[in-house]
Amino acid sequence: MKGFFITFEGIEGCGKSTQAKLLFDYLVENGYNVTLTREPGGTDISEKIRELLLDCQNSKMNKETEILLYMASRSQHTGELIIPALESGSIVLCDRYFDSTLAYQGYARGIEISTIKTINSYASFGLIPDLTFFLDITIDESFRRIKDKKPDRLEYEPRSFHDKVKEGFNRIILDNPTRFVSINGQNSVCDVFNEIKETTLWKMKEGQR
Amino acid sequence: MKGFFITFEGIEGCGKSTQAKLLFDYLVENGYNVTLTREPGGTDISEKIRELLLDCQNSKMNKETEILLYMASRSQHTGELIIPALESGSIVLCDRYFDSTLAYQGYARGIEISTIKTINSYASFGLIPDLTFFLDITIDESFRRIKDKKPDRLEYEPRSFHDKVKEGFNRIILDNPTRFVSINGQNSVCDVFNEIKETTLWKMKEGQR
Repeated sequence: MKGFFITFEGIEGCGKSTQAKLLFDYLVENGYNVTLTREPGGTDISEKIRELLLDCQNSKMNKETEILLYMASRSQHTGELIIPALESGSIVLCDRYFDSTLAYQGYARGIEISTIKTINSYASFGLIPDLTFFLDITIDESFRRIKDKKPDRLEYEPRSFHDKVKEGFNRIILDNPTRFVSINGQNSVCDVFNEIKETTLWKMKEGQR
Repeated sequence: MKGFFITFEGIEGCGKSTQAKLLFDYLVENGYNVTLTREPGGTDISEKIRELLLDCQNSKMNKETEILLYMASRSQHTGELIIPALESGSIVLCDRYFDSTLAYQGYARGIEISTIKTINSYASFGLIPDLTFFLDITIDESFRRIKDKKPDRLEYEPRSFHDKVKEGFNRIILDNPTRFVSINGQNSVCDVFNEIKETTLWKMKEGQR
């Protein structure tokens, strides 16, 4: 593929969406072909699936259904948007991708990691990001940042769930040391952005672009 | 499980829904504890997924997304409704179940059968029907019966697609000769129903109920 695929991961309130948007604006201003998207979502069909996943009325949803819906959303998003954009030479910035599924549904909800990897490989057509930023903040900082926001279904989970998610991300990073770049998300927005910007430019150059 | 799980399969217009309802009414009148349900659907969450699947506006849906949505719907339906009903001793009648996924997405759309079986086993918690009725009609009869109805997304498929679905069902029946009972769906509603009723009573007796 001609493009470059960058994902942003972390627990709620870590600043993923803010940083993805800042990087998008910077790259656009500097003449790059860039696509900004998010999971679950990114296409009309995926957005409809996202509404089901985040709707608090769906509290009876079992964990198997939840993961299959995330995978359905990913499949449409990857096939309809991400792969065509990468093939056209675009830099694709995605707010969450399959590492979130492993952390939330695998390590936190206890679904077998090998099952998630099998279904995920099917849903993502085998695509793997070129670079993944993990914005690292504490659970306390996460709770402080999201407390004024109307919570969605996942944010109603107890603290122990969020602890497991964070621990899950740590294990995923250890398993993928060359793809992941971990950044201290407790620093200022500008400091975090500068680190992301420099790393992106360096990694794209390294990837011979 | 104390209950008895019966599924109804076949191509569009074969009479599945009519026959499932007739059998439901008969069993209720005769004092049985019976649950009538359908796929995709059967629970609030599954019905919302069904709406996505059958909405003609979603014509960009890729085949991977489609199958993952069917599986998500099945997982919720099986975990929230079918298994609890069977555990409580109910006879569960279900209009379509996993054989339809194999026939439509596997044999007709060409998704690898082993992949479908793996994901399906996860989504259905390993549950297998005790008895499956296949209502056999020709493609011509199917088209004749559904022509006055407002078509959904699947019914817009060309004839060759429906040919592959029917051929797929034939192969599934050959693979599961003890579970399947094939019935000539071109006979009158009453004749078909009598055959279904007699077979059900006999199979349940055989299953020591």
